[in-house]
Amino acid sequence: DFDNALSNDCKPAFGRAADALEGLLTNGIVNWGSPVARALEDCQMLMRQAKFSDRTPLVSALLEGPPSSGKTALAAHIAKNAGFPFVKVLAPSDVVGYNEPAKVHHIKRVFDDAIRSPLSIIVLDDIERLIDYSPLGQRYSNTVLQGVMVLIKRPPPPGHRLFVLATSSRRELLHELDILNSFTAIIHVSNLSRSEQAVKALKEMNLFDDKQCQEFHQKTAGRKLWIGIKKLIASAEMARQAENDYEIPTKLIGLLEDDQALQLPNC
Amino acid sequence: DFDNALSNDCKPAFGRAADALEGLLTNGIVNWGSPVARALEDCQMLMRQAKFSDRTPLVSALLEGPPSSGKTALAAHIAKNAGFPFVKVLAPSDVVGYNEPAKVHHIKRVFDDAIRSPLSIIVLDDIERLIDYSPLGQRYSNTVLQGVMVLIKRPPPPGHRLFVLATSSRRELLHELDILNSFTAIIHVSNLSRSEQAVKALKEMNLFDDKQCQEFHQKTAGRKLWIGIKKLIASAEMARQAENDYEIPTKLIGLLEDDQALQLPNC
Amino acid sequence: DFDNALSNDCKPAFGRAADALEGLLTNGIVNWGSPVARALEDCQMLMRQAKFSDRTPLVSALLEGPPSSGKTALAAHIAKNAGFPFVKVLAPSDVVGYNEPAKVHHIKRVFDDAIRSPLSIIVLDDIERLIDYSPLGQRYSNTVLQGVMVLIKRPPPPGHRLFVLATSSRRELLHELDILNSFTAIIHVSNLSRSEQAVKALKEMNLFDDKQCQEFHQKTAGRKLWIGIKKLIASAEMARQAENDYEIPTKLIGLLEDDQALQLPNC
Amino acid sequence: DFDNALSNDCKPAFGRAADALEGLLTNGIVNWGSPVARALEDCQMLMRQAKFSDRTPLVSALLEGPPSSGKTALAAHIAKNAGFPFVKVLAPSDVVGYNEPAKVHHIKRVFDDAIRSPLSIIVLDDIERLIDYSPLGQRYSNTVLQGVMVLIKRPPPPGHRLFVLATSSRRELLHELDILNSFTAIIHVSNLSRSEQAVKALKEMNLFDDKQCQEFHQKTAGRKLWIGIKKLIASAEMARQAENDYEIPTKLIGLLEDDQALQLPNC
Amino acid sequence: DFDNALSNDCKPAFGRAADALEGLLTNGIVNWGSPVARALEDCQMLMRQAKFSDRTPLVSALLEGPPSSGKTALAAHIAKNAGFPFVKVLAPSDVVGYNEPAKVHHIKRVFDDAIRSPLSIIVLDDIERLIDYSPLGQRYSNTVLQGVMVLIKRPPPPGHRLFVLATSSRRELLHELDILNSFTAIIHVSNLSRSEQAVKALKEMNLFDDKQCQEFHQKTAGRKLWIGIKKLIASAEMARQAENDYEIPTKLIGLLEDDQALQLPNC
Amino acid sequence: DFDNALSNDCKPAFGRAADALEGLLTNGIVNWGSPVARALEDCQMLMRQAKFSDRTPLVSALLEGPPSSGKTALAAHIAKNAGFPFVKVLAPSDVVGYNEPAKVHHIKRVFDDAIRSPLSIIVLDDIERLIDYSPLGQRYSNTVLQGVMVLIKRPPPPGHRLFVLATSSRRELLHELDILNSFTAIIHVSNLSRSEQAVKALKEMNLFDDKQCQEFHQKTAGRKLWIGIKKLIASAEMARQAENDYEIPTKLIGLLEDDQALQLPNC
Ligand SMILES: Nc1ncnc2c1ncn2[C@@H]1O[C@H](COP(=O)(O)OP(=O)(O)OP(=O)(O)O)[C@@H](O)[C@H]1O
Ligand SMILES: Nc1ncnc2c1ncn2[C@@H]1O[C@H](COP(=O)(O)OP(=O)(O)OP(=O)(O)O)[C@@H](O)[C@H]1O
Ligand SMILES: Nc1ncnc2c1ncn2[C@@H]1O[C@H](COP(=O)(O)OP(=O)(O)OP(=O)(O)O)[C@@H](O)[C@H]1O
Ligand SMILES: Nc1ncnc2c1ncn2[C@@H]1O[C@H](COP(=O)(O)OP(=O)(O)OP(=O)(O)O)[C@@H](O)[C@H]1O
Ligand SMILES: Nc1ncnc2c1ncn2[C@@H]1O[C@H](COP(=O)(O)OP(=O)(O)OP(=O)(O)O)[C@@H](O)[C@H]1O
Ligand SMILES: Nc1ncnc2c1ncn2[C@@H]1O[C@H](COP(=O)(O)OP(=O)(O)OP(=O)(O)O)[C@@H](O)[C@H]1O
Ligand SMILES: [Mg+2]
Ligand SMILES: [Mg+2]
Ligand SMILES: [Mg+2]
Ligand SMILES: [Mg+2]
Ligand SMILES: [Mg+2]
Ligand SMILES: [Mg+2]
Repeated sequence: DFDNALSNDCKPAFGRAADALEGLLTNGIVNWGSPVARALEDCQMLMRQAKFSDRTPLVSALLEGPPSSGKTALAAHIAKNAGFPFVKVLAPSDVVGYNEPAKVHHIKRVFDDAIRSPLSIIVLDDIERLIDYSPLGQRYSNTVLQGVMVLIKRPPPPGHRLFVLATSSRRELLHELDILNSFTAIIHVSNLSRSEQAVKALKEMNLFDDKQCQEFHQKTAGRKLWIGIKKLIASAEMARQAENDYEIPTKLIGLLEDDQALQLPNC
Repeated sequence: DFDNALSNDCKPAFGRAADALEGLLTNGIVNWGSPVARALEDCQMLMRQAKFSDRTPLVSALLEGPPSSGKTALAAHIAKNAGFPFVKVLAPSDVVGYNEPAKVHHIKRVFDDAIRSPLSIIVLDDIERLIDYSPLGQRYSNTVLQGVMVLIKRPPPPGHRLFVLATSSRRELLHELDILNSFTAIIHVSNLSRSEQAVKALKEMNLFDDKQCQEFHQKTAGRKLWIGIKKLIASAEMARQAENDYEIPTKLIGLLEDDQALQLPNC
Repeated sequence: DFDNALSNDCKPAFGRAADALEGLLTNGIVNWGSPVARALEDCQMLMRQAKFSDRTPLVSALLEGPPSSGKTALAAHIAKNAGFPFVKVLAPSDVVGYNEPAKVHHIKRVFDDAIRSPLSIIVLDDIERLIDYSPLGQRYSNTVLQGVMVLIKRPPPPGHRLFVLATSSRRELLHELDILNSFTAIIHVSNLSRSEQAVKALKEMNLFDDKQCQEFHQKTAGRKLWIGIKKLIASAEMARQAENDYEIPTKLIGLLEDDQALQLPNC
Repeated sequence: DFDNALSNDCKPAFGRAADALEGLLTNGIVNWGSPVARALEDCQMLMRQAKFSDRTPLVSALLEGPPSSGKTALAAHIAKNAGFPFVKVLAPSDVVGYNEPAKVHHIKRVFDDAIRSPLSIIVLDDIERLIDYSPLGQRYSNTVLQGVMVLIKRPPPPGHRLFVLATSSRRELLHELDILNSFTAIIHVSNLSRSEQAVKALKEMNLFDDKQCQEFHQKTAGRKLWIGIKKLIASAEMARQAENDYEIPTKLIGLLEDDQALQLPNC
Repeated sequence: DFDNALSNDCKPAFGRAADALEGLLTNGIVNWGSPVARALEDCQMLMRQAKFSDRTPLVSALLEGPPSSGKTALAAHIAKNAGFPFVKVLAPSDVVGYNEPAKVHHIKRVFDDAIRSPLSIIVLDDIERLIDYSPLGQRYSNTVLQGVMVLIKRPPPPGHRLFVLATSSRRELLHELDILNSFTAIIHVSNLSRSEQAVKALKEMNLFDDKQCQEFHQKTAGRKLWIGIKKLIASAEMARQAENDYEIPTKLIGLLEDDQALQLPNC
Repeated sequence: DFDNALSNDCKPAFGRAADALEGLLTNGIVNWGSPVARALEDCQMLMRQAKFSDRTPLVSALLEGPPSSGKTALAAHIAKNAGFPFVKVLAPSDVVGYNEPAKVHHIKRVFDDAIRSPLSIIVLDDIERLIDYSPLGQRYSNTVLQGVMVLIKRPPPPGHRLFVLATSSRRELLHELDILNSFTAIIHVSNLSRSEQAVKALKEMNLFDDKQCQEFHQKTAGRKLWIGIKKLIASAEMARQAENDYEIPTKLIGLLEDDQALQLPNC
């Protein structure tokens, strides 16, 4: 279960990498429901395979799920707590403005560094952004894509081990790019889909007090909800800027409805 | 309401940025109707979130509406009066003739500067022009687009806050580019749609005197109008070049009709 | 009316710019009919707006019409007689063989120079050629297009005024490029469409003598004509190379018929 | 008529240009039928317009017709005999292997040189090859095309005159590129289409003797023929390699039939 | 048969190349069924042709089959045991991040080196990756493709012999690229397709003990299986991370089912 | 006939060119049937035209036929035996890895050298490879194509003669590229299509002994065959690696059947 999954982690990553991981975990990992626990457990299992299997010195996992569902935070959480001596986050903002060869060069260097260390983790955040994907005209950097495809399949030298944790909001795109086969495993990260899950998240992060949670639940129970944890946090914070505290739950509900994240009451 | 929204502003921006903001506000912000007040209030709320929320140190708003509807002036108005120590306008004319890497580099530097300051506002004016969008052949700079997408999601360092105010006349395009999800909130800026709104605008800006307003209203009341505030000002000024003053209202009506901004009287 | 439109002009442009303007006006401006007068009057009105309105320091007009209809000559005529201290013609032949960045750079410099002067006119001749448009494969320089789009909307500094006169034979293309909205006004330049108009033009330019005009009119009266003034001049000159003078009117009619510029007599 | 058209020519071009012209006229200009005479007369007329008209100091003619029909030789013939002090042939083989900017630069220099001289002719040979046109994927150099389009419309300085003679086998392409309008006149060059025309050509060039001509005519009279003069010469020469002289006419007929240039006897 | 095919091999390759070959053979070549033996025998035959035929000094074989089916390991195995003095593996990870000319240059150098030696083998691993193929938008490096096409058909100098072993998961693509004809022979590498084959592989590699093999077989016998040997190894290793040993066979079955590599029991 | 065609050849080419030609003729020219004799005779005739005709100092022949049909060897054979003082083979492997301008530059230099000599032959081998053609996405180097198109039509200087022998497996492509018209003649090279032709080839090259030939003929007589001479040689050599000699004919038949080069016996 969830507590177990967390307690199985051993020693945290260190130094600059740890700072980078921290920056991706501003609001922590809240256990708002079983999908969170399941994803965490799957990740732990792959982490052990990377650590212990001789026949597969290279293990690569894709964390995929809707925008704002918490993919990046989850990957950062695993990387932080796996206890691997080498941990590196490779995010699109690291290479913003780089041209294509420079991007590949940067990514290659990260992988080269990683396999030089005996036991390494690379978080490859937001693949579609790393490859500059845009749906209008189906544009992307094939140069970066090919580099990534080769590097996530390149085995480390004998005796070394590498665990790659990639994230993406576009599983369908990765399928069309024929890169899904390159991963050892694919793990799904879910949106919140029920009022109770939202209430649990709001309460655990101290966004709403008990009374506000109660009101929110009363008004949304049974209505279809579909929202990522990151978006829920942002909308709740926006609602909290209302002039009067009692307006906040209604405001949040209004924002969710406008976003079509919450089913309207009577329809 | 509108007066409130204006009075809630605190101290204005300063220096060169203030000049730039002033240049975008030639004809001020006239309260020609409730859509203006509503948009202003929404902006204030997001501004407070950017200022005060710990959980969301990055807030980004998209002001979208038809061409000439006053998006740029509105963004400049908010930025000018928010009282943030760092304010920067990033407009297409700043980077005219730059090649793609130079554009991204310029934009990146603005964001880098902004997050170095503890409390910052960036006005990102006319996204479709920044990315060199042209509908013929669906051309655009994917390099600039990707840079913008990464930068408006990159959180400032711990303790710092950033408020991004972007404008665009092409909400549908931004949707196709899958960039809408990257904004914290989307605010609609409207065209004038009724004769009374046009009269209020013409009077408050001293474009027409009372008699001219009256004549204009008499001849247009009840007819469908659809025009941006910037275009209305331009057409009124053109009409005012008529040789005789009494011709002016009729002239304006003619220009609006030719532009298909005003429904013809009997059809 | 036409004479008025001409007499309202004040002092002419000077120096090299004046030479350039002269070069575009080889055959002068002949008043072959009411469309000429109307277009001239519209231009004068916009010129006054550019000169006098405080609220619109930037006025931009598009002269559009069929190939050879006299757009360039008309723009040159207005620019020459507006009495603005700064006048500049920006034509495709100025930048032939320049690469895209050099073209934008050249265009930008012209606009930069213009807004440094307090009262300026820019003639932007043949937009489709400036942007290297070719219908086969819908090719064009998006770099140049974007530069033009930004520059014709960039307001001059406080107290300065700018009048842009652009020409194009492809209104539909400019619509597809979404650049039409960027102009303050659009003025149509017409082809000659009736035998009488052609006769007036041939006579006023001393291309045909009275007898030749009479014969031409007799043979073409009532037949549909559709030709630009520039093409009419070229065809008349060609006809005048006939070995015998009496053949000339018939020759011109033959050339127009071959060009499908003149309806055949019996069909 | 034909003899007249030839005798109207005055003094020939000189120097290196004359050599270049000569190289394009290996087999001279044979008057194989009325289409030849007509095309020659039209060219003379335009040449006079270029020489004498004040109102049209720039005259440009397009010689268009099927492959091998003799377009280049015709243009060279006119240029050689027009008696203009400046004559220049601009052919694809002059710029083979040049990149696009170098091509435009070369073409521009030819035009610049030409308009520096008071009375000039430019032969612009094989436009589709100059612009690197390939039908597969509709590829072409838009850079070169735009340069050509601007240069053939750029008027020479006051007092100077320019006559441009362009050739092309792809009138339809030039129409799609919207360049046809840029020419003062379009002159059609024809294929041979009747047995008598072929006989006249074979005899005048001493390719076949009287007996061979007779046999060829007997066997082809009344059958549909469609062949360019250049191809006819090549096929006749090939046939003349037959081991026995009496085989030659039959051989030529066979070659023409295989090429589908000559209708089969009984069908 | 299989043992024969292995024993026919003579002396192994040496030095750095041998290391590279070893790295591709982590889990050896297990004889899980007749398709393995057949492919090995075909390879031996071509190897002899390369070694002994005077009329065909260049022999090239394509090993093609589904992803993970063991193509690379098979090619490495042949190359290692052929006893050729020159052996070189050319894999995508050798040229990751190279631009197109650098890739071709690298590939050309390998071929140049190879034909300098009298008897050489080149393993050209993963052609689709070498040419940067991506199915989205059918992108690939035509520069690299053309280089490969020319080099695999270029005969070695007199007296020298070359054996090229290429691998690919995309036979259909190679067909569309019209490169299949360039190979002397095409050899198919198969997936495992029956439970017995999987059991044999798991047992021979000591992944499962006898009891686990038995359980696995019991639960999967008769169900449709479709999996590459490499994927089978990875999934088995993953399953072996289960907390309790008795869970392992079930876990593997679950993973195969999720991957749609194993038919569900009742359907 | 065939012997005649061979005996008509005079003195062979010399030096490095001769070596290059030799390298393309490893297995000689075997007269396996009338298509071979016919193609040889056609080539001789064109060679004479190139040598002797004054009116056509430039003759160019395209040898086209299916892959492996012997086009290159045939062109090399003619070039070797024509007795021209300048002979040059221009093959794709000469320019592998060159960029487009370098390719054109190389090709141009070959043509420049050739026309400097009074009597020259150029073998332009594998046009589709020279222009980097790939059917997937219809890619090719238009730069190289245009260079080739211009150069094969550029006449040599007065008194000089040039014979161009080009080869291609893609006549249809060359038609689409509109380059077929540029050749003086087109000569078809055929596949073997009957069992007797294969037997003659196998026997003359000593690939099969009489008994093997007999067996092969017995088993294939009357079955449809469709194979290029080069492929036949390669398959026969492969078959000859069979462990026992008596298996060889059957093996070859199996290979041809697998390749769909030989119709199956009963269908
Ligand atoms: N169970 C949870 N899983 C993931 N994130 C959580 C969870 N609980 C709270 N969070 C917080 O939610 C936020 C998730 O944001 P994150 O950037 O990971 O989303 P994302 O899916 O990567 O978004 P995007 O699609 O924009 O990349 C983080 O601030 C994280 O601290
Ligand atoms: N309520 C208002 N809102 C916005 N602008 C107003 C308002 N009242 C007056 N204005 C004036 O109207 C003009 C609006 O022009 P602005 O450039 O902001 O329009 P825009 O929508 O950005 O146009 P574009 O689509 O061309 O970018 C400014 O001159 C501004 O001073
Ligand atoms: N009323 C008129 N309006 C415009 N031009 C006239 C008029 N009367 C005579 N002209 C002469 O006609 C010619 C018009 O040519 P101009 O180059 O302006 O045409 P254009 O429409 O710009 O052609 P293009 O479509 O090729 O750019 C000039 O020589 C001009 O002097
Ligand atoms: N009446 C004629 N008109 C043109 N050329 C003629 C005529 N009579 C003979 N010739 C000869 O015919 C040949 C015409 O070849 P030319 O290169 O001009 O054809 P082309 O139409 O330009 O071919 P391409 O389509 O390949 O450019 C020349 O050798 C020329 O000397
Ligand atoms: N009979 C076999 N044939 C091939 N590989 C085998 C066999 N038995 C065991 N193996 C092992 O299986 C693995 C095959 O992986 P390999 O990389 O060759 O697959 P591949 O088909 O090249 O995969 P990809 O499609 O990703 O390129 C190797 O570790 C190899 O040692
Ligand atoms: N009659 C023949 N014609 C041509 N080649 C022959 C003949 N007889 C034997 N050969 C041999 O057949 C081989 C033909 O190979 P060649 O490279 O010429 O084929 P190709 O058609 O050019 O192939 P590709 O389509 O791959 O370019 C050569 O080795 C040649 O020596
Ligand atoms: Mg993320
Ligand atoms: Mg704006
Ligand atoms: Mg013009
Ligand atoms: Mg020609
Ligand atoms: Mg492989
Ligand atoms: Mg060949």
